[in-house]
Amino acid sequence: MLKIAVLGTGRIGRMHVDNIVAHPKAKLAGVFDVNNAVAQEVAGNHHAKQFSSVEDVLNASEVDAVLIATSTATHADLIEQAVAAKKAIFCEKPIDLSLDRVKSCEQKIKGTNIPIMLGFVRRFDKGHRAVRTSIEAGAIGDLHQVIITSRDPDMAPDAYIEVSGGIFRDMTIHDFDMARFILGENITEVSATGSRLVNNALMERCNDYDTVTIVLKTASGKQCIINNSRRAVYGYDQRVEAFGSKGMAISENHPMNNMRLYAENFTDQKPALMNFFIDRYGEAFNNEISSFVDAVEQGKNPEVGFEDGKQALMLAEAASRSILEKRIIRLDEI
Amino acid sequence: MLKIAVLGTGRIGRMHVDNIVAHPKAKLAGVFDVNNAVAQEVAGNHHAKQFSSVEDVLNASEVDAVLIATSTATHADLIEQAVAAKKAIFCEKPIDLSLDRVKSCEQKIKGTNIPIMLGFVRRFDKGHRAVRTSIEAGAIGDLHQVIITSRDPDMAPDAYIEVSGGIFRDMTIHDFDMARFILGENITEVSATGSRLVNNALMERCNDYDTVTIVLKTASGKQCIINNSRRAVYGYDQRVEAFGSKGMAISENHPMNNMRLYAENFTDQKPALMNFFIDRYGEAFNNEISSFVDAVEQGKNPEVGFEDGKQALMLAEAASRSILEKRIIRLDEI
Amino acid sequence: MLKIAVLGTGRIGRMHVDNIVAHPKAKLAGVFDVNNAVAQEVAGNHHAKQFSSVEDVLNASEVDAVLIATSTATHADLIEQAVAAKKAIFCEKPIDLSLDRVKSCEQKIKGTNIPIMLGFVRRFDKGHRAVRTSIEAGAIGDLHQVIITSRDPDMAPDAYIEVSGGIFRDMTIHDFDMARFILGENITEVSATGSRLVNNALMERCNDYDTVTIVLKTASGKQCIINNSRRAVYGYDQRVEAFGSKGMAISENHPMNNMRLYAENFTDQKPALMNFFIDRYGEAFNNEISSFVDAVEQGKNPEVGFEDGKQALMLAEAASRSILEKRIIRLDEI
Amino acid sequence: MLKIAVLGTGRIGRMHVDNIVAHPKAKLAGVFDVNNAVAQEVAGNHHAKQFSSVEDVLNASEVDAVLIATSTATHADLIEQAVAAKKAIFCEKPIDLSLDRVKSCEQKIKGTNIPIMLGFVRRFDKGHRAVRTSIEAGAIGDLHQVIITSRDPDMAPDAYIEVSGGIFRDMTIHDFDMARFILGENITEVSATGSRLVNNALMERCNDYDTVTIVLKTASGKQCIINNSRRAVYGYDQRVEAFGSKGMAISENHPMNNMRLYAENFTDQKPALMNFFIDRYGEAFNNEISSFVDAVEQGKNPEVGFEDGKQALMLAEAASRSILEKRIIRLDEI
Repeated sequence: MLKIAVLGTGRIGRMHVDNIVAHPKAKLAGVFDVNNAVAQEVAGNHHAKQFSSVEDVLNASEVDAVLIATSTATHADLIEQAVAAKKAIFCEKPIDLSLDRVKSCEQKIKGTNIPIMLGFVRRFDKGHRAVRTSIEAGAIGDLHQVIITSRDPDMAPDAYIEVSGGIFRDMTIHDFDMARFILGENITEVSATGSRLVNNALMERCNDYDTVTIVLKTASGKQCIINNSRRAVYGYDQRVEAFGSKGMAISENHPMNNMRLYAENFTDQKPALMNFFIDRYGEAFNNEISSFVDAVEQGKNPEVGFEDGKQALMLAEAASRSILEKRIIRLDEI
Repeated sequence: MLKIAVLGTGRIGRMHVDNIVAHPKAKLAGVFDVNNAVAQEVAGNHHAKQFSSVEDVLNASEVDAVLIATSTATHADLIEQAVAAKKAIFCEKPIDLSLDRVKSCEQKIKGTNIPIMLGFVRRFDKGHRAVRTSIEAGAIGDLHQVIITSRDPDMAPDAYIEVSGGIFRDMTIHDFDMARFILGENITEVSATGSRLVNNALMERCNDYDTVTIVLKTASGKQCIINNSRRAVYGYDQRVEAFGSKGMAISENHPMNNMRLYAENFTDQKPALMNFFIDRYGEAFNNEISSFVDAVEQGKNPEVGFEDGKQALMLAEAASRSILEKRIIRLDEI
Repeated sequence: MLKIAVLGTGRIGRMHVDNIVAHPKAKLAGVFDVNNAVAQEVAGNHHAKQFSSVEDVLNASEVDAVLIATSTATHADLIEQAVAAKKAIFCEKPIDLSLDRVKSCEQKIKGTNIPIMLGFVRRFDKGHRAVRTSIEAGAIGDLHQVIITSRDPDMAPDAYIEVSGGIFRDMTIHDFDMARFILGENITEVSATGSRLVNNALMERCNDYDTVTIVLKTASGKQCIINNSRRAVYGYDQRVEAFGSKGMAISENHPMNNMRLYAENFTDQKPALMNFFIDRYGEAFNNEISSFVDAVEQGKNPEVGFEDGKQALMLAEAASRSILEKRIIRLDEI
Repeated sequence: MLKIAVLGTGRIGRMHVDNIVAHPKAKLAGVFDVNNAVAQEVAGNHHAKQFSSVEDVLNASEVDAVLIATSTATHADLIEQAVAAKKAIFCEKPIDLSLDRVKSCEQKIKGTNIPIMLGFVRRFDKGHRAVRTSIEAGAIGDLHQVIITSRDPDMAPDAYIEVSGGIFRDMTIHDFDMARFILGENITEVSATGSRLVNNALMERCNDYDTVTIVLKTASGKQCIINNSRRAVYGYDQRVEAFGSKGMAISENHPMNNMRLYAENFTDQKPALMNFFIDRYGEAFNNEISSFVDAVEQGKNPEVGFEDGKQALMLAEAASRSILEKRIIRLDEI
């Protein structure tokens, strides 16, 4: 039984709490949130301890691991503190919006053997993972092209967009990690294009984009196309396609239900796609916790770690620069 | 080059004419129709001979084969005459509505080695045929159940229904043949249920049904379910499913086009299914002529012959009787 | 909070326990099983009370409702006792294998206003339910035909088959209920055909069938076809199709994952379908508990009750008799 | 009846001959090919005239229109000659490999009112066209992104690759036109990436690429991604996706047949996709001729003309330059 304390009991934190409680090999060691009332309610629902501070959590001998689901700005600090306290760490992405801060954190925790897992949950989706597994098994031969389509069902609230660090850091970050997961090879070149088609006013104000295309290339010439939109009215569009010398593997979208209607002159499916990540990746969030628990208990490296968080952020930086300079950016320029 | 004369230049006859003209190994030897004007037009379009009578056709030395696409009541007579004239025969289904007439025709032509092919076109559909091929290749192991869904896009005209011989003879006849094609084993038992749900008044007047379910069984216990409706508003519903000890093969419906729309809260495809047999089975009609040409030229038995026409009609008789007597009918009672 | 005690902590009982524990409006009041060790373990896992007898459960004032997941032979007795103790009841299907026992139970509890819900879980599947909802919304017009395909991924153990009461009572019972759910009208006629194609020896020994087709008909002429097999090697085949005057609704199968592979000369999906009911109907089991909790708390009739259990059993009886007598059985003969 | 002479009776020319012969409103006025034997055979098969020279064709008063299906290098000359001879023109793409030659041709024929149609056949595919129609009907709102996936089933012969002008001119040219068709707005920026992953040696020798990604952008910020491979082992991969503010329309691939197999642990479809353009776009080739005939007979502009051919070539030039200069190319630089 891995005893995990959850830091941050917002929407994502509460979902992790539920998964930990239901997990046969994990136990909820307690929760903490700066919002006392929210933490109290979550603790109460699960007969779990409510810690009064992060320090309390990190000093508690009954805590084996911390799950960091607090606001982004606190992630790097909490990672450093938890490493110092020798607690295993599961941290929601991103490590930080600033690559410099990520690098300073990296320096500080260098040499530690504390397991640190980053919450790139999509790696744990059955379909996406089956694409990776197919590639490893040779089912599509040598990989040539990857196409990642990733569109949110709707714009996040303005207040979130304003501080999110831009689409490459708040949204594409997941796709950059997926690209790395599927490509299995270092990316050397990045080019990007951005448009303001969904909410021009907001995007101009934030100097951000709502519709982007990113093209990545590896040293051996493998290509990866990522396309994002901040609003797909038909639901949460999440597809991964890998094309190679011997075939293609596609992880398709998830419809809301499997009922199809055939009527006069048309057929339809209604509602369309699953709406958002807590549903669409619900099973993946579970698998992710299992993977973390297994890694810690068996002393293995977590499947996705600090370096992955850093690399994804570097790709985001490169994409931002590509838009500004209207040229391909080599990753070694970052 | 097989020189084929077409008897009957209604809708089906004209389609066969087009396929013969376009066929690399066939030649249109001429046409005949009791409606002189129609025949003249078809002949004119293709610079082909218009024969003045059936006798002319059968006496013409340049005619190798006849394609009989005249009205049902003339089929058996024309088969007998063509056999006497030693012309290879392609005859549209059914041979006749009366099993007695089919049997007398059978007696008359007994012992002939003239090739006679029956126009059960669905056997030549790529998808349905792939089901049969899969079974023969062992892909689904021993066959256990077959489900044939067959629904017309709309009611035929009243005038047709009134003389068609009833749903089992005008519509299910194709499915009885498909059942035999897929089962590959003699059917021993038939039970049927009929309802009047589409056009009750017409069905009562004709003592017919518009919605039927038929269950067939072979000596070894294989089961086949056929379900028919005279009107499916979403198009021509034509599916064949074969289930066995090692798997299942399904020949799915054909959409009108492959464009799918994902909109707010639904996805659709529009228009729905292909509408009727000349489109849906267009390629199969071509394959059918090829099969006939090959059989005649290579001296092989046609893939579907007189006996198949007779057997399908016997199943129709059994189904009719099952509805009357509310019990399973053994085929040896027919 | 509805406080539910679970009687029987075998595989199904434990799954219900998990769902109750996770449910926001339910609470696990405790468990009982004749196998003391199993019950102890389940109770321990959830810090729940282990009752020492059924009487203890029924006498406990903190128990609002009982969930009966014990062996079939005990269901009717437990229903009677729980009604006497005024506990709301959720009972796994079937009520009993004997229609006489069901009727005597019915007499005994007649007039009670205790909510009794039967565990026909498939009614709570999103896709199947969407078919029903489409019909109610008029999306397919008047209902004409229903086709229920229901095949288990593999034979149950011999020991289970030997005492199960036969395929109509152990397997088709779910489909009989689904037929009633979708048809929304009383069934008046039943005909059935059975074969021994999967395991002839076992089926002969048990006087049972492994491959069956059942045709149901309502007073207004609506038809329903059920086809079952005890073994579909490609997974748990669960489809419901409703065809009507204005269209068709199909609840399709659930693949294991949404990854599809396109290779040289073929495309595939691997693994195939979800394997069995705890996965395939996992979400439905959850919805079912919600429905029960809501019904009890809001004083509504459960969505599926004692009468539904009795009707499904009557259809099973009629199907058995139809095979013996090789004729259509009117439900009023049962 | 539009009387069309076909220049060039290679594979494509012969296919057009068949379509013209079968077309109710067109007539084959004759054929010409520098390979006398091939032309003779085609003429013989269709009882059509074999012209002895291009001049003969253009001087023939019974010829209303010419269909140019000769080698690429002759297209511009033949267009100029046919315009001079006042014959309506259908010309296979591309006009020429050299943009300069296209521009000089444009100058020469400027001011003519002779209809000139370019053979961008994919515009006439039912599915792709339905995407365009959906956009025009407002079904997906404002267009934001287009994704065109276009992969040949196999490498063309080396001899073809060596003189084809490179992947952007021999293959992507179709996709550039499709992009323009779907976007419905001028493209202003082009960026491209190329790799040599299928046949590195050949590609190096020809200074060409076998795997490319092109990103196009319009003035209003609409984005279009094209991805190409010279070899997709699973068949001819041809998909068009349009994403907008109110939804998405996808023109999906065409399987070889609609039979699907469900076996132990997998489902498959075999063979996979249609193999090449004569099959995949067979119906589109027919529609294309119809469109040409209608345009000429009704005095309308052809649906796709000289300017479209020129624009597609400009996009190819821009893509080539983008690879060389590793930056976005503005179309006004070309």
